[in-house]
Amino acid sequence: MSQELHVKVEEAIARVEALPTAERRAIFTEFSPERIRAEAADLQRRHAAGEALPLYGTLVSVKDLFDEAGQVTSAGSRLLADRPAAQTDAIAVARLKAAGALMFGRTSMSEFAYSGVGLNPHHGTPSGALVAGGMPGGSSSGSAVCVGLGITDAAIGTDTGGSLRIPAAANGIWGFKPSQGLIDAQGVHPLAPTFDVPGPMAGDLGLLRRLAAVMADDALEASVPASLRLAVPTGAFTDGLSEEVAVLFKAEMARIADLGHALVTVDMSEIGAAISLNRIIVAVEAHRIYADDLDRLEQVGDPRVLSRIRFAETLSADEIAAAYARRAEIVARFDAAMAGADAMLAPTLMRLPPSIAEVEAEFDRLNVEMLRNTSLVNLVDGCALAMPTPGARPAYAMTMLAGVKGTDARLLAIADALNG
Amino acid sequence: MSQELHVKVEEAIARVEALPTAERRAIFTEFSPERIRAEAADLQRRHAAGEALPLYGTLVSVKDLFDEAGQVTSAGSRLLADRPAAQTDAIAVARLKAAGALMFGRTSMSEFAYSGVGLNPHHGTPSGALVAGGMPGGSSSGSAVCVGLGITDAAIGTDTGGSLRIPAAANGIWGFKPSQGLIDAQGVHPLAPTFDVPGPMAGDLGLLRRLAAVMADDALEASVPASLRLAVPTGAFTDGLSEEVAVLFKAEMARIADLGHALVTVDMSEIGAAISLNRIIVAVEAHRIYADDLDRLEQVGDPRVLSRIRFAETLSADEIAAAYARRAEIVARFDAAMAGADAMLAPTLMRLPPSIAEVEAEFDRLNVEMLRNTSLVNLVDGCALAMPTPGARPAYAMTMLAGVKGTDARLLAIADALNG
Repeated sequence: MSQELHVKVEEAIARVEALPTAERRAIFTEFSPERIRAEAADLQRRHAAGEALPLYGTLVSVKDLFDEAGQVTSAGSRLLADRPAAQTDAIAVARLKAAGALMFGRTSMSEFAYSGVGLNPHHGTPSGALVAGGMPGGSSSGSAVCVGLGITDAAIGTDTGGSLRIPAAANGIWGFKPSQGLIDAQGVHPLAPTFDVPGPMAGDLGLLRRLAAVMADDALEASVPASLRLAVPTGAFTDGLSEEVAVLFKAEMARIADLGHALVTVDMSEIGAAISLNRIIVAVEAHRIYADDLDRLEQVGDPRVLSRIRFAETLSADEIAAAYARRAEIVARFDAAMAGADAMLAPTLMRLPPSIAEVEAEFDRLNVEMLRNTSLVNLVDGCALAMPTPGARPAYAMTMLAGVKGTDARLLAIADALNG
Repeated sequence: MSQELHVKVEEAIARVEALPTAERRAIFTEFSPERIRAEAADLQRRHAAGEALPLYGTLVSVKDLFDEAGQVTSAGSRLLADRPAAQTDAIAVARLKAAGALMFGRTSMSEFAYSGVGLNPHHGTPSGALVAGGMPGGSSSGSAVCVGLGITDAAIGTDTGGSLRIPAAANGIWGFKPSQGLIDAQGVHPLAPTFDVPGPMAGDLGLLRRLAAVMADDALEASVPASLRLAVPTGAFTDGLSEEVAVLFKAEMARIADLGHALVTVDMSEIGAAISLNRIIVAVEAHRIYADDLDRLEQVGDPRVLSRIRFAETLSADEIAAAYARRAEIVARFDAAMAGADAMLAPTLMRLPPSIAEVEAEFDRLNVEMLRNTSLVNLVDGCALAMPTPGARPAYAMTMLAGVKGTDARLLAIADALNG
């Protein structure tokens, strides 16, 4: 910490206060300079007393899905806005605070974390940090915008179908969807437990790795070969790309090949054909969580989200069981397809982020498109990073690096090798 | 191969032919000396021609759930006995044959692989190899007995809730339930895809590792620290043990601690409390597979198995979704609980294998008991070995070594360190 913490904090607070009111409200569901100043003073005392604080002074914004003691976890909704405040911090939050990070406000999100573009009719939709009026991406929209604007160093969010990686892509920052179980999800409000996972976003990879290690309570160190073997999928992830994305991805593959790594084409058409399983499983699990609230959601909910929840009502027990059973087969297929590869490369998104106006006009189509590639990684139970793509203008994070479950430490080391 | 292959094959065939007819039929659903001799002759030619055959002459019995070209895969049932013969070998079988293993007959099993004790009313129930009239364990009963009797060097089976490890335990041999996806399941008849996985059993660990590597098409090599950190669960796996099993497990823990490894108690009570999820998920997925055959199964099926399948009919869509969602949380809990541990140790079975007469008299209770510890590993999506337990009389494989998904190579190396 070269800069005094209180100076850094005041600068960040000033940056928030300089935002237009509507934009500030669209980014933060809760922002209390007093609380932040008090926590900063406490942190400075711990630091001065010689406590080891590996993340000392790192400003972290917190998606409104994580419990923080004394704060209401409202999941971007009106339904949950009058819940009692949380009694204790989520485990991931507690670990970050113990390591010296400073929780810098609670950030807005798609209601219940249930969409990939970041629209929120209750708080307003923040503009993406790279393009005025651009989609922020979701569901961890405010978290990513906050980092993209340089207000905080990092943010924490969750990912059920891409909710860390899509906003990371749209805001040009690093987003990490860990393997399920790497980071304890206790104190994080669920959407679909089969896929939900908490994880970090950050402006640079080094910080992202340090956050991930603290959140996981694991060093996450791994060595990787100098020459990597990287799978490039066909039949999934790379089909139906927009021309701009196809060009960017091709250039990035050429850059990576020039670094001396082997790119190996892997047929994943069976996985691509299974894309509808995510939609079924998420709807079924979300419907269970909100089953008693559907009448009230007709009044106070985002109709786009409610419609996705109610989709579960059209499914028979047999269709539900079929989806889960098929999903298990698809996970095994992915594991088998990845045997012999160190990781997989794919575009994070199949097209560049659209504008907010476009996603408001064509929510269903664009939401499905934005989620497609990221949600396939949740489907195959993998881990993945959204990586800023050299040469992308605007500087979106359009490259996704993915691996099979449990290879998180290797994946982070590979990202370093590809971007070092 | 110090011994000429045809001599070894003739000795094994003679051993089978010396079995009482009822016992032979209870072990093998198909046994053709002519086919075995012809394949042995072919293998000898490949060997003489200098082909690299890392498993040359290894006799492997094949659970009646794996496709072999020209053979009927009947899953231990009458329902499927008049299916057409398979056109091609299952991938795991093809890999073993390519490596020089000799497929030595198809072995009996619990109908549809749907029980843990190994009863089969159609073919008869073979006696466990260690105790006359002892439960063989299931569902891969014939496979394990075949190895336990020394007829074949190894066997292949599948594991949905313990179907490799329970018969390995009862017959005193090594059984390996890999992580899902490690071994391609193509050509293996399903029971419940969420849990099903093919794997090997063998008389010694070295051979087991070589079989696993060939079946996985992966060297499965890993180095492990000289002093391991091994989790010993409480609240699951170690509760409710019979006195004999508690004594054996305690002695084995003492032996392992004496080797210089650290044993760390880990609370897994939340996982133990989730045991009913297996039963729900397996029933639901099995019911889907046999939904069109239930009337016929009333006539030709094992009523114990049919009753387990029909349990699915009592479940609502919400109960089914709840089970899958909760299962995902339990997997994450296990992964978190295992952070910092190299592997977990537990008894394979909560009580010593009962007799066939006992399981016939009290199927429901004893089947649940036999499956309890092993099926929890399927529930948490892990990998596990049943290991012969020094000092066990009879020489059952009562120690289970388990790890989180994807740690198969490490698990096998750890087993070596504990038993080297």
